[in-house]
Amino acid sequence: MNNIKQDNGKSQLIRLMRKRTSRLVASLTFIALTSLGALLPVFAASHPNLVINQQDVAAMQQAIAQPGAFQNAFNAKRIEVDLGLIQPIEVPVPVDAGGGYTHEKHKSNYQQMYDTGIIYQLTGDKKYATYVKDMLLQYAKLYPELPLHPKRKSSNEGKLFWQGLNEAVWLMHTVQAYDFIYDSLTPSERERIEAGAITPAVLFLSEQSPRTFNKVHNHGTWATAAVGMSGYVLDKPLWVERALYDLTLSKKGGFMRQLDELFSPDGYYNEGPYYQRYALMPFVTFAKAIEQNEPQRKIFQHRNGILLKAINTSVALSYNKLLFPLNDAIKSKAIDTIELVNGIAIAYGINNDPHLLDIAKQQHNILLTGDGLKVAQALDKGLQQSFAFTSALFRDGKQGDKGALVVMRQGSPTDQAIVFKATEQGLGHGHFDKLTWQFYDAGNEIVSDYGAARFLNIEAKFGGGYLPENTTWAKQTIAHNTLVVDETSHFNGKVKTANQFHPTLHFFDQQKDLTIASASIDNAYEDVKFKRTQALIKIENRDAVFAIDIMQVTANKPHQYDLPVHYQGQLIDTSFTRDTSLTQLSTLGTKHGYQHLWLLAKANLAQDNTDNTLARVTWLNDNGRFYSYSTLVNTHSNNATHEHMLFAQLGANDPNMNLRQQQAFIHRVTATNHTYVSMIEPHGEYNSAKEYTLDATSKVAKLTHYQQAELEAVQIRFTDGQQYLLAINQTEQAITTETRSVININGVAYPFKGRSQLLEINELN
Amino acid sequence: MNNIKQDNGKSQLIRLMRKRTSRLVASLTFIALTSLGALLPVFAASHPNLVINQQDVAAMQQAIAQPGAFQNAFNAKRIEVDLGLIQPIEVPVPVDAGGGYTHEKHKSNYQQMYDTGIIYQLTGDKKYATYVKDMLLQYAKLYPELPLHPKRKSSNEGKLFWQGLNEAVWLMHTVQAYDFIYDSLTPSERERIEAGAITPAVLFLSEQSPRTFNKVHNHGTWATAAVGMSGYVLDKPLWVERALYDLTLSKKGGFMRQLDELFSPDGYYNEGPYYQRYALMPFVTFAKAIEQNEPQRKIFQHRNGILLKAINTSVALSYNKLLFPLNDAIKSKAIDTIELVNGIAIAYGINNDPHLLDIAKQQHNILLTGDGLKVAQALDKGLQQSFAFTSALFRDGKQGDKGALVVMRQGSPTDQAIVFKATEQGLGHGHFDKLTWQFYDAGNEIVSDYGAARFLNIEAKFGGGYLPENTTWAKQTIAHNTLVVDETSHFNGKVKTANQFHPTLHFFDQQKDLTIASASIDNAYEDVKFKRTQALIKIENRDAVFAIDIMQVTANKPHQYDLPVHYQGQLIDTSFTRDTSLTQLSTLGTKHGYQHLWLLAKANLAQDNTDNTLARVTWLNDNGRFYSYSTLVNTHSNNATHEHMLFAQLGANDPNMNLRQQQAFIHRVTATNHTYVSMIEPHGEYNSAKEYTLDATSKVAKLTHYQQAELEAVQIRFTDGQQYLLAINQTEQAITTETRSVININGVAYPFKGRSQLLEINELN
Repeated sequence: MNNIKQDNGKSQLIRLMRKRTSRLVASLTFIALTSLGALLPVFAASHPNLVINQQDVAAMQQAIAQPGAFQNAFNAKRIEVDLGLIQPIEVPVPVDAGGGYTHEKHKSNYQQMYDTGIIYQLTGDKKYATYVKDMLLQYAKLYPELPLHPKRKSSNEGKLFWQGLNEAVWLMHTVQAYDFIYDSLTPSERERIEAGAITPAVLFLSEQSPRTFNKVHNHGTWATAAVGMSGYVLDKPLWVERALYDLTLSKKGGFMRQLDELFSPDGYYNEGPYYQRYALMPFVTFAKAIEQNEPQRKIFQHRNGILLKAINTSVALSYNKLLFPLNDAIKSKAIDTIELVNGIAIAYGINNDPHLLDIAKQQHNILLTGDGLKVAQALDKGLQQSFAFTSALFRDGKQGDKGALVVMRQGSPTDQAIVFKATEQGLGHGHFDKLTWQFYDAGNEIVSDYGAARFLNIEAKFGGGYLPENTTWAKQTIAHNTLVVDETSHFNGKVKTANQFHPTLHFFDQQKDLTIASASIDNAYEDVKFKRTQALIKIENRDAVFAIDIMQVTANKPHQYDLPVHYQGQLIDTSFTRDTSLTQLSTLGTKHGYQHLWLLAKANLAQDNTDNTLARVTWLNDNGRFYSYSTLVNTHSNNATHEHMLFAQLGANDPNMNLRQQQAFIHRVTATNHTYVSMIEPHGEYNSAKEYTLDATSKVAKLTHYQQAELEAVQIRFTDGQQYLLAINQTEQAITTETRSVININGVAYPFKGRSQLLEINELN
Repeated sequence: MNNIKQDNGKSQLIRLMRKRTSRLVASLTFIALTSLGALLPVFAASHPNLVINQQDVAAMQQAIAQPGAFQNAFNAKRIEVDLGLIQPIEVPVPVDAGGGYTHEKHKSNYQQMYDTGIIYQLTGDKKYATYVKDMLLQYAKLYPELPLHPKRKSSNEGKLFWQGLNEAVWLMHTVQAYDFIYDSLTPSERERIEAGAITPAVLFLSEQSPRTFNKVHNHGTWATAAVGMSGYVLDKPLWVERALYDLTLSKKGGFMRQLDELFSPDGYYNEGPYYQRYALMPFVTFAKAIEQNEPQRKIFQHRNGILLKAINTSVALSYNKLLFPLNDAIKSKAIDTIELVNGIAIAYGINNDPHLLDIAKQQHNILLTGDGLKVAQALDKGLQQSFAFTSALFRDGKQGDKGALVVMRQGSPTDQAIVFKATEQGLGHGHFDKLTWQFYDAGNEIVSDYGAARFLNIEAKFGGGYLPENTTWAKQTIAHNTLVVDETSHFNGKVKTANQFHPTLHFFDQQKDLTIASASIDNAYEDVKFKRTQALIKIENRDAVFAIDIMQVTANKPHQYDLPVHYQGQLIDTSFTRDTSLTQLSTLGTKHGYQHLWLLAKANLAQDNTDNTLARVTWLNDNGRFYSYSTLVNTHSNNATHEHMLFAQLGANDPNMNLRQQQAFIHRVTATNHTYVSMIEPHGEYNSAKEYTLDATSKVAKLTHYQQAELEAVQIRFTDGQQYLLAINQTEQAITTETRSVININGVAYPFKGRSQLLEINELN
């Protein structure tokens, strides 16, 4: 029987190949596959055997008889499934795009089949199997007759759904549901379901969508995972081989190649945390199925355990549960997303790491799987230990040599954090935001990233897809907290160009109370280079944490430099006079995102600060804390002709009111070379419930910047006279913690060790 | 000794009276007080005896030795107090306004004295008494030398603080702290503290601030409460009498008069929930002290237990813990505010109502008082029962005949709720918002009120006081969800005029699944009258709750009518074409709040809806639900010449960026008479975490309005064909639940009972 199935698989492939234009490729493939045939493994005939096996089922059946988190999860799911059972089965002809009725129906159908199937496994009650069977048979009837979806997306076409991506997700769930009820079916029922629904979907996603299937991209991962898992259930080893090594088994695409290329050695996914989380699902699910069926592949050990690293990294790239909204990202996505629930459970099933239980506990979602049971039992026993949110470097690029995402933090998930993005572009979902940053504190975004302009699945909002404003605003440089030259985005807003370059990380150094990193990019603009150094410093005897930001810009000729700060909160005060537009608003510019900003107010810093070198903006965040951004004025730009602070609000050129209301201030300098030196200072508390306000004003009195060849320093004077010097050695050479440097300031020598040191100093000037 | 003190009291008063210009009044008062002298009660000499007595102390001392909520609260407070003890005592010369250093320092001082004093009572450890004593002695040294505060407010001057109000709060806490350590002091220490701090503060707040002291207003309540409580501690019965019956004991002012006038018979406080909460503190605290010292006054039974009613009403006027932001109100104020913690504890001490424990549990704040102990012990036993958030009428005016606040809700604190404001102006803190409303759902504001424009205690924001924009925006009619005629606020924005009038409540009717109320006002504009009828309806077989709003406007000549909806969320869609301002924004008007609105977009409804009588706006709230506002177009305004929907955003003419970003749409009609008929429909769910969207579009297909003399009906047709008729009998006559009416529509008679009924009907037209 196994052999016959394999033959079927092969002959199907051969049929496909015959259709292909390239006879040569087909012939070569034929030879390759024929010779491979004898080598293909024979899979166990037991069901289920994907994410869950029979041993898991036995353990779960025992667990649901005993009180605990797992029993609770089972009872809740059973009620949900029972409610579904009394609804008539509906498998509509596909009509709608994302968010529309048929789209959501097919989504809820696959989830329902999956859930009902697992309840069948746990209870043995035939009615559940019958329900899944009936629905599968309807799909088996519908699927073969389907043309391409009427609202299909050209890049990745579907039949049941507008996107092939959704189709793969459907198949992944559906084949698991089929696996759950496999033993309850008659051979003829199996034949109808396989021939009508599973096999055509597999063929559609693989042979008939070769571009997506072979693509080293998350769409490819979903497709290969769904097809590979189907291969295990239908006992088609060839499907698994194709899933792993691409359609022609060339290894140019396929799951293994994706594992090798899509994650950096630190488990960072090139497109950023939002897609990392999404991509995790097929990676960990298929990997689990591989582990069950072919443990000899040691899939979880592959590339030094890259999958477990990727799961850990996904969690690490979150703040107060929400994933960092880098690149195209919907900001409400959190660590309790189903992909990470699966990821954490599967990882815990492998490594029993009690820190993962901390996350599992916050997810409030116990899976009805063998790994879910392990998690539930461990949580019942209170085995969890705090997941450490520590400063870390996440290198980008498959070799880890294409820039990095730098995360600086204090240990708890809601302490101060800096996210400094010196990564690659991140392909089509990437933003033109080289060396941008975000600042978090006390649970909230303080200096923020817009994320994606999209209302997922809301038809009225551009069919639920990415809005036009995602391109015209969210991806543009001005939408981020980084340098914009001459009102033009990095790489002139061209993805192809952007994909060719990446920032250079100069260093990342972590000590107690001081984390610092530096990166630069020379190709975002034709003649402008910029280097950014950021530090998170804790001053123990002030009981305070500050962020320091040095943005050094060099060019061959004068340019207009804009450094925006997208702040979250209500403006409280500025140290300078603002000239506010009272009765008319105009747009700030005409292109590259500037056309979406209203200019609210403008301040001439050069004029306003004749005897003050500091410009300060203070705002109040919803978290009840004040934040002061203090920045040097007019000091390091010898040839600066203008220096302004602009206050802008998002919303212009937005005919469909698609944009969220956000505010920013923009430090604009016209110069050839310029160094922005800034500091963010969280302070005080506004407690309107208890009616008190503490420390509503900044305590930073003065900033001074010094540069001596490779040595650099920022002097901070507080209003109470305390002074600190953040001394940095910017050398490209390797540095040890024992390397000694001396920076001379006003005739005084300040020795320091290592890459950087924060010195408390006496009065300098 | 008591007699001597009384004599002192009398002679002080006499000295004061002699200073007065009116010799006649002084003489009469002298006679009255002299004859009263013999009647004044003699208070017990035991201390403490205000909110806490010796019996309470004994019970609390026992409780802190046993595990439980009370012990936890004690331990936490003791740690806090111990931390305070190691700080040097600082009693600075007053300099700053609200939010400034000396302001906050004196506030934290009185709190610290109070807390340290109670810890002394509970532990008997002398170091606590010593700390309080030392601070009191510093105040005794400072206070007599103080001039009026340099940043004083003319209306209510202070010495330690910019407002006498804060001074009264200081005294109320300070005299309790003094009471706590009284027994530990030597007679000479008592003499110094009383002569230097307590007595001068009492005299300043009473004799030297007669206008505030005698005022029937929350400032008066604070002053009288502080002075009266001081009277009990210092054994000055005359101070108590003055506190109760005003300086001259005329009963024209004073605490009893305040109790009689400031609350309606339903326990509604004329200024609204924000100030109700604030005013509660001196009311319940002083009442508790009266009850301890002079139980024969039966203060808590006064006026049918008005104080307990007021406490209950304060809680009832909240949604998802936050107080309804009516009039000048800071929106973060919640039921866990210290005033309500005190109120709930004191009320529970009297009536043992287990529903109050539900609130106490949510307050997470166990007071170290006898009542706090009762609450803690009851919570330890789990005695709490759900506080019922039900529909209710809160009449305004001391007789309950000056309009009302109508609250419609579904029972839980986070279900749908309508707040329909048909109250009086509410004096100086009132807004020009006759017949405005708010809508809440799923925990959030959906149609909202701006509340106050104020950043409490933030110096940089206008000294922490009410901002200029509180007057120019927050109080104006356009800032609310009610009718604005000719871009002019109600009563032309004049408080004096507004105080003279109030809406008329026509009816309030509550049935299962239908709550309805109607009110009107004829004097907000010269020739324009408007009547509003609102209903909250639950349609069980649609599993949905809707709000219906009928605003009927009549006039003698054509006017421009604006009905704004201040919506909370992101605009998703409208049923009509909007003409959006893309590159320039202008203000919507020039006065009465319109100068603060930017006009974002405009839609011509008359033109756009030739074959559609419904205009619909859909938005998405942060709670993940959609809200569709559907309103009739062009039907009931025979002589309407224009009909537009305007989209506006707050922020124009705001030089200091004091206003929050808010959006509104405004239904503008030019006509003589016009009836707005609208419906708010909560629907669907946007779950971006789980990536699904349900029912993002409205299911209301058509609204039709019928008026036949006193009978009125709104017909609702849903997209699935289901139809309902909300039939209303608007008669001014009394109606019983058995009153029968028949409304005829297109030749069909629809009988209904009582004030209003929701009928499911067949196709009408």
